[in-house]
Amino acid sequence: MKKKRAERQHELLEILKADPFYTDEELANRFEVSIQTIRLDRMSLNIPELRERVKLIAESQETKVKTLGVKEITGEIIDLSVGEIGISMLEITEDMIYSKTGTLKDHYIFSLAESLAMAIIDAPKVIMRVANIKCLKLIEKEDRLIAKAEIYREVDRKHYIKVVINNRDQEQIFRGKFIFEEID
Amino acid sequence: MKKKRAERQHELLEILKADPFYTDEELANRFEVSIQTIRLDRMSLNIPELRERVKLIAESQETKVKTLGVKEITGEIIDLSVGEIGISMLEITEDMIYSKTGTLKDHYIFSLAESLAMAIIDAPKVIMRVANIKCLKLIEKEDRLIAKAEIYREVDRKHYIKVVINNRDQEQIFRGKFIFEEID
Repeated sequence: MKKKRAERQHELLEILKADPFYTDEELANRFEVSIQTIRLDRMSLNIPELRERVKLIAESQETKVKTLGVKEITGEIIDLSVGEIGISMLEITEDMIYSKTGTLKDHYIFSLAESLAMAIIDAPKVIMRVANIKCLKLIEKEDRLIAKAEIYREVDRKHYIKVVINNRDQEQIFRGKFIFEEID
Repeated sequence: MKKKRAERQHELLEILKADPFYTDEELANRFEVSIQTIRLDRMSLNIPELRERVKLIAESQETKVKTLGVKEITGEIIDLSVGEIGISMLEITEDMIYSKTGTLKDHYIFSLAESLAMAIIDAPKVIMRVANIKCLKLIEKEDRLIAKAEIYREVDRKHYIKVVINNRDQEQIFRGKFIFEEID
């Protein structure tokens, strides 16, 4: 049974507070209403659309990054504790797809993982020394990737970082370990 | 002692036949003449400038590639035996440099190595499964990278490829191993 407007809007707020990355389409399916209805709900609640929400969050997080310029980050950083962990998101677009296989160009997934790993390091200057990466599933267009990076070791000016990337369906599609070294 | 014009032009031809990747500046230093003199020599011998030479070679090689579209290759392919080995070149430009460290953005070196590895595979469709890479030296601007890729194992529709990258001074700056898998 469909919910009443006030009830739906209340739930909508709760849902987006817990996870701001739902599209209007996903919300429409969830509430069994039209996308137009979700848009009107968002407008009356003063909630910007997904792209705008991500941008606002990213802007607040990216100022924390020490090792990279903001434009050097692939994807949008949506959570960052410098020296500990970080989360970023990449929306796949047509131009990121290999013409022959229809899958994501590998340097996008590499640079999503690598730039997030670099972004969480608490040092002024680092360079990448080692990367060991595994791609577990095909990544095709119309997907949204969520990368999580975590520092698991820091010794002798070296920072060891694990990165996993999941697709929209929460499947793990990538796993990587990186070693960065501080330079003067 | 400086060489006479005819002798210099004869040697110039021999040098560029053996290695077409000398810049006019490097040739001028070698012959102890001005860059302008080298340009005039090239014009009278009908040899195009470095960038043009590389482009001509790349165009003749890139048509051999099966797994990638030509524009999906990072760098210029200058030699290719599909199913065996390949060589490509990347001229580093200002926009490829990280703002904070002054070194090459890692996704360029990754994609130079990865796209060459992919390009040498003799199959219609492959995806990258594994990459293990090491960066041995800092790469700064004003350098020219030469990548060499070689298939060292092929089993169960999997292609194992080694890639090394040297800088202009012939120092090894990168080493990587990749595994690609054929898909339908």
